[in-house]
Amino acid sequence: MALLLGAPEVESCAVMADIVNAMEQGLREEAAGHTEIPPRLNIKTPEGFFRMMGAVLGQSDLLGYKVFHGSIRSGVRYTIAIHRIRGGELLALMDGAYLTAVRTGATTGVATRWMADPSADTVAVIGSGLEAQENLAGVCAVRPIRRVRVFSPRKERREAFANRLSQQLGISIQSFDSPEPCIAGAPIVVVATNTGASQGIAFRGAWMSPGVHVNSVGSTMAAQREVDPDTFHNAAHVVIDTRHAQDESGDFLEAIRQDKYPFGRAVELSEVVAGRSVGRSAAGQITLFKSVGTALQDIVGAFAIYNEASRRGVGRDVGDFPSLRQF
Amino acid sequence: MALLLGAPEVESCAVMADIVNAMEQGLREEAAGHTEIPPRLNIKTPEGFFRMMGAVLGQSDLLGYKVFHGSIRSGVRYTIAIHRIRGGELLALMDGAYLTAVRTGATTGVATRWMADPSADTVAVIGSGLEAQENLAGVCAVRPIRRVRVFSPRKERREAFANRLSQQLGISIQSFDSPEPCIAGAPIVVVATNTGASQGIAFRGAWMSPGVHVNSVGSTMAAQREVDPDTFHNAAHVVIDTRHAQDESGDFLEAIRQDKYPFGRAVELSEVVAGRSVGRSAAGQITLFKSVGTALQDIVGAFAIYNEASRRGVGRDVGDFPSLRQF
Repeated sequence: MALLLGAPEVESCAVMADIVNAMEQGLREEAAGHTEIPPRLNIKTPEGFFRMMGAVLGQSDLLGYKVFHGSIRSGVRYTIAIHRIRGGELLALMDGAYLTAVRTGATTGVATRWMADPSADTVAVIGSGLEAQENLAGVCAVRPIRRVRVFSPRKERREAFANRLSQQLGISIQSFDSPEPCIAGAPIVVVATNTGASQGIAFRGAWMSPGVHVNSVGSTMAAQREVDPDTFHNAAHVVIDTRHAQDESGDFLEAIRQDKYPFGRAVELSEVVAGRSVGRSAAGQITLFKSVGTALQDIVGAFAIYNEASRRGVGRDVGDFPSLRQF
Repeated sequence: MALLLGAPEVESCAVMADIVNAMEQGLREEAAGHTEIPPRLNIKTPEGFFRMMGAVLGQSDLLGYKVFHGSIRSGVRYTIAIHRIRGGELLALMDGAYLTAVRTGATTGVATRWMADPSADTVAVIGSGLEAQENLAGVCAVRPIRRVRVFSPRKERREAFANRLSQQLGISIQSFDSPEPCIAGAPIVVVATNTGASQGIAFRGAWMSPGVHVNSVGSTMAAQREVDPDTFHNAAHVVIDTRHAQDESGDFLEAIRQDKYPFGRAVELSEVVAGRSVGRSAAGQITLFKSVGTALQDIVGAFAIYNEASRRGVGRDVGDFPSLRQF
C-alpha cells in the first residue's frame, strides 16, 4: 500500500513541531554518516528549470526524491516520493509545493533552536509568502514567541500576512512599511523573500544588532541574492544546511567573491545538532543560518507527513506501485 | 488529468512498431539540438543502488524522469513520469520495469534499421529474459525476420523463451545449448544478458562473421561486462546511444583500457538517424550497436504508451497532480 497525497492532504497533515523534531533526528543521521545526499541535477528547459534531487537515509531505511520544474513567472510543480530501502516499496507520492516550504521552515526551526537567544520572544520576518509563513512557524515551534513583526514591499500582502498568521498562531503581528524599523531590536530575523522575482537584496549586515540570529532561506540559485555580503561578515557563526551552498547559494557566492567570508569557516547544521560544532558561543554574538535546501529535508518532511496521513487515514491508496522487477 | 499506469496497463499499451518510430523521431530531435539529457545521478544505498535520470525534449514539449532503486539480488522498482514543459502538468506516472525493456528494444530496433543488412531474416539472441524478449521484438519491427535462434545458459529458461516468443511473434524459434552454433551465420545478433548476475562475457569478437550486426544491451554499469573488447575491435562501425557510454558502459571502458577501440571513433545513434553519420557503409562490414540507455528513450517510450493508454481509456486519472505553485 502506497499513499498518493495531493496538495490539500499534505497541508492538512503537516504538524510543524513534529517535523522540526524529525528534522533534527534526520540531521543527526546525516552527521553520523548514514546518509547519501549528492548534488542535485539542474536541467534547463525552454521555459525555465527542471531539478531533480535525491537522498538515502540508511538508518531510517528511507530513500526518496524531489523533482520540480517550471519557472518563477509561470509557476512550479513539485513531486516528492519516499520509498523503503529494504524491499524498495513506495510509501508515499505527494505534492511537494507546500512541503518544500514546511521542510525549509522546520530546518530553520532546528537552526533557531541551536543558534538563537534561548529567551527570544520576538521575531521579525522579511517577506510575506508561503516560505515566510512556514519559516515563522518553524521559529515559533522552538522559541516562546509573543511578538511578530513583518515587512514586505507590497502593503496588501504584508497586511494579509499579519491578519492571517496572527489568527493562526494566536500572536500579535505588526506590519511595517520599511525593513529597518521592522527588524530593529528583534533577537530573531527570518528573511524569506521571493528572490526569483528579483527584488534583490532584502536584508543588510549594517542592520544587524548584537545578539541577533538571522535565518535566510531565499537565494537558492547561484544567480539570486537576498542578504548582502556584510551579513556574512558580521556573523560570529555562519551555519549552512549543505556544503553545496558553495555552488547553489548566490548570497554565499557573492560573500566569497567579495572576500567577506571564507566558505571553509561555515559549519553544517548537522554538525551543530550532533554537538561537533557550535552555532552560538556567547550571548552578544551575531549568528546566521543560510539555508539552501536538501533532499534529506524533503524526505524527512515527507515521511513525517506520510506518518500523520497514515494515522488519520488520509490519502488515496495506489497499491503496490511501482512493481518489483526480479532478475 | 494525469494517468497513473501500473505494470499491467503499461505492458498492454506498448506497441513496439509505434515506439520504434517514436524513438527515431526523438533521436532526430536530439540530433537537432532540441534536447537536454544530463548524466544520470547514481546514489549508493546500503542494499544496492538508486538512480535518477531526466531529460527535456523542447520541440515535443515534454520533460520527464525515471527513478529506480534496489539490487539485482532483491529486485528493482522503476518509476517514470512525463510532464508538459509549457504549463508543466503531469501527463502520466507509470511503472517503468517493462517500459525500460521496451524502450531499449525500440532503440535497438532503430539501430538495427540503420545498421543491419536490409534483407536479414534471421536473428540470434543471447539471453532469455525480458530484455532479450523486447530487443528481439524491436528487431522484428524493422526487418522481415523469419528465423530466431536463442541461447542462454539455463535450458528451461531458453526453451520457455522459445515456446513463448514463437507463439507471440508467429516465428519459428530454435534453442541452442551453446552460443557459437546459435550465432553462426546469423546476420543480426542481440546480446541481452543479465550482466548484473555476473555471468560475465557472453559474446566474443572471435565469433563475428562478415556482415553481422550485433546489438549489445547489457553491461550498463562500469563494473559489468557482456561483450569482449574484440567485439569493438572487429567492428567497422560502432554506434552508441549516448556519449555517457564512456563512463557507464563497462564493455566500452574495457575496450578503451585494452586499446581495442578509441572512444572518439564511436558515433551516436542520433547522428546516424539524422544522416550526419553512417552505421554501415558496405555489405560485408561488421557493425556494433552498444546500448546504455538514456532518459530520452524512457520519455519517448512513456509518451507513446501514454498516447495508447489515452486512446484506449486505460489507467487511473489522478487529476491535476502535482499542483501548480504560483509565486
